[in-house]
Order: sequence, then structure tokens, then C-alpha cells
Amino acid sequence: MIDNFYPVVPAGGSGTRLWPLSRRNRPKFLFPLGGEDISLLQSTVRRLLPLSGPDRLLVVTGAAHLAAVREQLPDLPPVNLVAEPSPRNSAPAIALAAALAHSRNPDAITGSFAADHLIADVRGFHDAIRTAAEVAGAGLLVTVGLSPTRAETGYGYIKTGAALGIDAARTVDRFEEKPDRSTAAAYVSSGEYLWNAGMFVWRADALLAEVRRQLPDLYDGVLAIAAAYARGEGPRVHDHVWPTLPKVSIDVGIVEGAAARGRVGCVPGNFGWTDVGDWDALGGVLAADDTGTVALNVEGLLSLDSADCVVAGSGRPVVLLGVRDLVVVDGGDVVFVCPRARAQDVGSVVQALRDAGREHLT
Amino acid sequence: MIDNFYPVVPAGGSGTRLWPLSRRNRPKFLFPLGGEDISLLQSTVRRLLPLSGPDRLLVVTGAAHLAAVREQLPDLPPVNLVAEPSPRNSAPAIALAAALAHSRNPDAITGSFAADHLIADVRGFHDAIRTAAEVAGAGLLVTVGLSPTRAETGYGYIKTGAALGIDAARTVDRFEEKPDRSTAAAYVSSGEYLWNAGMFVWRADALLAEVRRQLPDLYDGVLAIAAAYARGEGPRVHDHVWPTLPKVSIDVGIVEGAAARGRVGCVPGNFGWTDVGDWDALGGVLAADDTGTVALNVEGLLSLDSADCVVAGSGRPVVLLGVRDLVVVDGGDVVFVCPRARAQDVGSVVQALRDAGREHLT
Repeated sequence: MIDNFYPVVPAGGSGTRLWPLSRRNRPKFLFPLGGEDISLLQSTVRRLLPLSGPDRLLVVTGAAHLAAVREQLPDLPPVNLVAEPSPRNSAPAIALAAALAHSRNPDAITGSFAADHLIADVRGFHDAIRTAAEVAGAGLLVTVGLSPTRAETGYGYIKTGAALGIDAARTVDRFEEKPDRSTAAAYVSSGEYLWNAGMFVWRADALLAEVRRQLPDLYDGVLAIAAAYARGEGPRVHDHVWPTLPKVSIDVGIVEGAAARGRVGCVPGNFGWTDVGDWDALGGVLAADDTGTVALNVEGLLSLDSADCVVAGSGRPVVLLGVRDLVVVDGGDVVFVCPRARAQDVGSVVQALRDAGREHLT
Repeated sequence: MIDNFYPVVPAGGSGTRLWPLSRRNRPKFLFPLGGEDISLLQSTVRRLLPLSGPDRLLVVTGAAHLAAVREQLPDLPPVNLVAEPSPRNSAPAIALAAALAHSRNPDAITGSFAADHLIADVRGFHDAIRTAAEVAGAGLLVTVGLSPTRAETGYGYIKTGAALGIDAARTVDRFEEKPDRSTAAAYVSSGEYLWNAGMFVWRADALLAEVRRQLPDLYDGVLAIAAAYARGEGPRVHDHVWPTLPKVSIDVGIVEGAAARGRVGCVPGNFGWTDVGDWDALGGVLAADDTGTVALNVEGLLSLDSADCVVAGSGRPVVLLGVRDLVVVDGGDVVFVCPRARAQDVGSVVQALRDAGREHLT
């Protein structure tokens, strides 16, 4: 347990990178992609519960996913499950959660933990969050960055600054966009950069002060909504105010501006983190058979002279003959095939389908 | 029309090379694989009708396929549609058809035309069959061989002999098994070999004489069955006698032995023949889109950065990203992926499924 810790799990995304498994209305956090029987969301909550208990853990999800989330998390108090009336990116969701936690406990330490990431070393994760909470206690917004293990071009990076004197915590100089390959390699070899996984810990009042400074409309809005929840009128006011709030990410809307004023710290983490970002990444996470092929929800995969594939199904059998490094997904109403090396381009497929007026497949 | 010509279409196969489209109970001749709306069987019959008319055209099919065949060929007299009680390879089916034709017309010229081949140049085909019928009139068993267009290792070959003086007809020295690549290349460059497509024309009495000589049990059996059909007791006797007949192909059981005695002639054909032998061959037959990809029964194929694939479906959409020369088949209850270069190995998939007790997928 961490005193006064109210972790927040935003579970509102509708990522397309695991299409055609994940869809607009079937986000990947609802699927058991971690090699266990539980969904990514359930796995995220299970990992946080030892730090907060169920009474302080908040989940913010889309109204469309509320029923599914409630079903997956029956032990969470219903009041801790907040439904967004519509998607407005991450800043409104996370700021509202901070306001709700603050209304319950003025010393609340809150933060944000994506619902669809995987972490292999839960103990290492807990240690990093404890350190982050300690750093946050001094008033800094804290990001838990990941020590890079490769020159990844798919993530943003955190340029670290001076040591803060609490374990390995440092100040944050600035946030960097997704780099090209040579820049990424330079970041990694410098030892001064961390992957930005969008994992945050902060005092609720410290975050709200930054929200008030940078996005005053958002501040007024989430305080009004939180107050309404406290007096039992939450959903009505939430529905009314929500559409007026700025649609912006917590990184761009708040954290970068705070970093520019020296108000952001970071704690390096090294706990087997992955965002299960695409089919190729999923292939690296799940247990492979002795040919290196990973199968997810495939009834009786038959793999002949084939290796290192990622196969996901809708229950039906899949048969591979003489193929390697291929992604094969039977999405139920659509079949998708691409090389693992093209897995990060799945978004272009979804876009092409939408452009062609075939949203029903996305 | 060809006088006394009774073409026979054996439609009993349960080929597995277009698995998972074709199955034990769904042979490929029932599917429209020729790029037209009609099935391969319908296309075969349409091609033969100008030579025989419907009253002389015989189709021998498996009892399991009888209803489907009847539905596809409503204009054929029911008496010309013969149901095999069980599969016994091609010699019994073709010998029985010859016996039936002979019982109707002692001067019958009959033969065999596979139900699942495609022919682009129907006029050239008709010319070759007319020549074959003329050669057959002299008492030879005649095979129509195809002038090879490549060093194909998937077919048997016919070694031709002396000219017979009727168009390009020649004697047949012998039949050769499927060769290795260098042997195939030598065959083709010699100019003396034809592909053996299993296409035959002969006088019914000449064939029956060879059957009597080489397989007397088969001769007695098919004559007994044909006599029973003539007196209206066909199916009962057919069911009774059929299981006693030798299970052998017409090539091995009759034609090769006849060739050894100099009783086989051949007519070279060059009329755009293909046996649609596997998915790769099918990809060469059907019309491709401008990326070289062929789609069969796919609702809304989306092909991004992909080329030269063969995609067959069960109506659902298929999406390809960044793949080439791939076979992707949505078989409804199973999804199958292999490179076009491995298409000839689909039989090993079917065998593996059967070995694993998964016959229901085959």
C-alpha cells in the first residue's frame, strides 16, 4: 500500500493497431492478450490493487465500454468506475479523476496507468511507483519512464536532467517526439533518455494547480463535475459539461508545459514493460510454440513448415503452410494477412477502410 | 456433331488440391472456377454438347454428388446421369460408361473428359476431338495429349511414335510417370512428348475388348450392370456388383497395357488446357486485378502494397497488407495461408488433418 494513493486507469482508447481484433467498439484492453485468462484491463487493475486497494482505484472508461468494464471488474466499487460521455482525449479524463480523488482526500496522490499495457516484473513496477509517489509528495508531476532496451522509433522519449536525490529519480528537461532511427540510437547510447510510456504519478492538488494554470476551462469543468458527483448529481452535470472541455492529451495539454517550468520529475523503470502496440509486439509477448509461432484464440492451429508467425483467431482453425514472420488474423467478419514487419502499418488499413466507407469493419 | 459420339464425363473425384475450397463432399467441379458464373462441370458439358447433343452425353458421378450434379445439369436426360455407389477409381466408371453406350449403339465412340479441367480454345478442342474420333474409328484407343508449354513436373507424359496419317495423330510408344525437372525439360525440348491429360476417345467395343483382355472381372461386371440398366434394374445390380470390381485407374488398368501392344494412338492438342490443379494454377487462369492478384468469392478484397496473390473466400472480406505471391483462403470453417510456390503441397495439409483425426475439415 502507498498512503493516499489513488491510481487512475483511463480505459477509453479505441486503438486500431491490433485491428481486426480491436475495433472502435472493442478496445484491446478488454482482451486477454497477456497470455493469461484475464484481460489487459484486469491485469492492470490486479497489478495496482496491492498499492491502493479497491476503494481508491479509479477507472475512467467510455460510456460504450462501461458495461463490459463493470463485468470485468466486479470487485471495484461502482462509484470508482467513471463513464466518459464521449471521448475527449486523455487530459479531461485524468484531470477529472484527480478532481474526484482530491474531493475525497485533499492529500490524494493520483496518476495514470494505461489499461492496455503489460508489465512482466510487478515487484519492480511497485518499487518504481513507490519512488514516484515519494517524489510526487514534494509537489512535482512525476512520469515513470522506461529504460530503453532498443532504438525504438515508435515511442516518444524523455530527456532526463539532474538527480533528485530520491533513488534514481531525476528532473525532466523536456519531452521528445518519436525520433527517426539514428536519433533514437543516439538517445539510447547517451543513457540520458527514457521511453515515455504515459505513466504518471502526482499529488492531485499539484496536477490541478497545473491544469488551472494551463487549461483554466478544463479546471473549472472537472471541478464542477467532481463537485456534482460528491452531491449525487454526477452523471447529469458530467453529460452537460463534458462536451465543453478541451480535447487534448495530458502530455501536450499539461505535462510538457509543466516540464518547461521545471515541475516534472521522472523515475526510471525497468520492469518488462510493453504496450502490446501491434501484432509484432504481441508476438514478442505471448508464449510461442517450438516453431516460434504465437497463437491467440485459434482452435487447433496447424502449422506446417512455418515459423515465427502471429496468428489470432475468432475460434476457427487456421492452417499455415510454408510461411514465416506472417501475421494472420481471422477477425470473424474479415481475414487479415500482413508480414510482421508491416504490423505498425495496420492503422493505414483501418484508415483505408474508413475512407472507402467501410467503417463497419473497423 | 460427331457421328455415334457418346462423350463421358467422370465427375467423381474428391480432389484435395484446392482445399479448403474443395472438400471430400464438395469436389472442385461443382465450383465456378473458370471465371464464369458456371461450374467447371457445367463448362465441361457445355463444351461437349456441340459434339454429341444432350442425349448422348453421359456423366458418371458419386452417389454423394448426384443431387448437386443433377441440379447443375437440368437439361441432361436423367438416364444419362449414372451414380457410382462408391468411388472405385476411374477404370470401372469409364468401362461402365462404354458398356452403357455400347448397349445403346454398337458403333458408339466414347471416351473420357474430366469434369474439372478448363479449355480456353473450344474450337481447337473440337477439332482435336474430331481427329481423335476419326483415329478411334480404326480401332485404336486414342488419347488427346497436350503440347507441353513448360517443363512441368506435375503431369505424366506421353512418348509419341510414328505418324498415323490422320492430321497430326501418332502412335503412342509409352506413358511416362511425372518426371523430375531435368527429365521434363528433356521431354519438352525433344518435341516427342505430350502431357497426359487423361483425355480419351475410343470405340466402345475397342475399349471393352481391352477391358476383357486385361481385366476380365471388370468386363463381366460392367456388362452385367449395363444389361441391368437396359432392362430397368440398373441401380439394384449396380449396387450389388460395384463393390466387387477392381479399383484401378483407366490409365494403369487398361491404357498402358494397350499401348504396350501398339493399340494406342494420340492426337496432340493445343487449346489452352489447364487442369486447375492447385491454387497457383487457378491464379494463372482467373482474371487478375492491376496488382496481379486474383480474388474468388471475396466480398471487398482490400489489397494494400500487395501483389500477385490468390485469394479465395467464403463471402467475407479479406485484407492484405504488404504481401506477395501468397495464397489466402477463407474456407468458412478454416483459414489457410501458404505461398503460391507451395500450392502443390496442399495435399499434405489435408493428409496432416486426417492423420490428426480432423477429417471434418477435409
